[in-house]
Amino acid sequence: MHVPLEQQQTPYYAVIFTSKRTEGDHGYGKMADMMVDMAEQQPGFLGVESYRNAEGAGVTISYWSDLEAIRNWKANPLHQLAQQQGKQQWYDQYSVKICKVERTYSFEA
Amino acid sequence: MHVPLEQQQTPYYAVIFTSKRTEGDHGYGKMADMMVDMAEQQPGFLGVESYRNAEGAGVTISYWSDLEAIRNWKANPLHQLAQQQGKQQWYDQYSVKICKVERTYSFEA
Repeated sequence: MHVPLEQQQTPYYAVIFTSKRTEGDHGYGKMADMMVDMAEQQPGFLGVESYRNAEGAGVTISYWSDLEAIRNWKANPLHQLAQQQGKQQWYDQYSVKICKVERTYSFEA
Repeated sequence: MHVPLEQQQTPYYAVIFTSKRTEGDHGYGKMADMMVDMAEQQPGFLGVESYRNAEGAGVTISYWSDLEAIRNWKANPLHQLAQQQGKQQWYDQYSVKICKVERTYSFEA
């Protein structure tokens, strides 16, 4: 479906979402899965990766073709609802960084 | 010491290093700690964060003032040695993305 990011022509965009979760799930897992499914359907979506350590700190990096794709996804009504619940329940803190990916290289053993 | 990234004026740069570790430590932990200590001494270093899941996939994102700072760190002789060992022993694969951080915002509960 998607071109692997390693073959994606630069420039493209990355959204680095670093967060600290509150304790307990409170419907977070289900919503997170749904948001990934929905993001994958968005025009300009290129990929997503997520990591979280045992202390609840983590990062989700999503990749997009351009800034308009990022704006459209941020404005998506269901995603807006998730953002609201994120502030009310799921996150102690988060930070978002909008980045232009200028150059990439990779290694395979 | 460092200005918190949340207060850092954009633009600045991020290096997204996504990797899949080989099994076993093989001196990786010690070297990783040393590389963070050394990076923190580099001119233009702004911060670093690291996450790895139970399957050995992870990401380290380092933040820098400009491209020259990134080039200088990549060319550092001890870091070069670590990069060599990384290819020989520590990583099944990795990818590096050089990104210009254009805009940031954050939330605190």
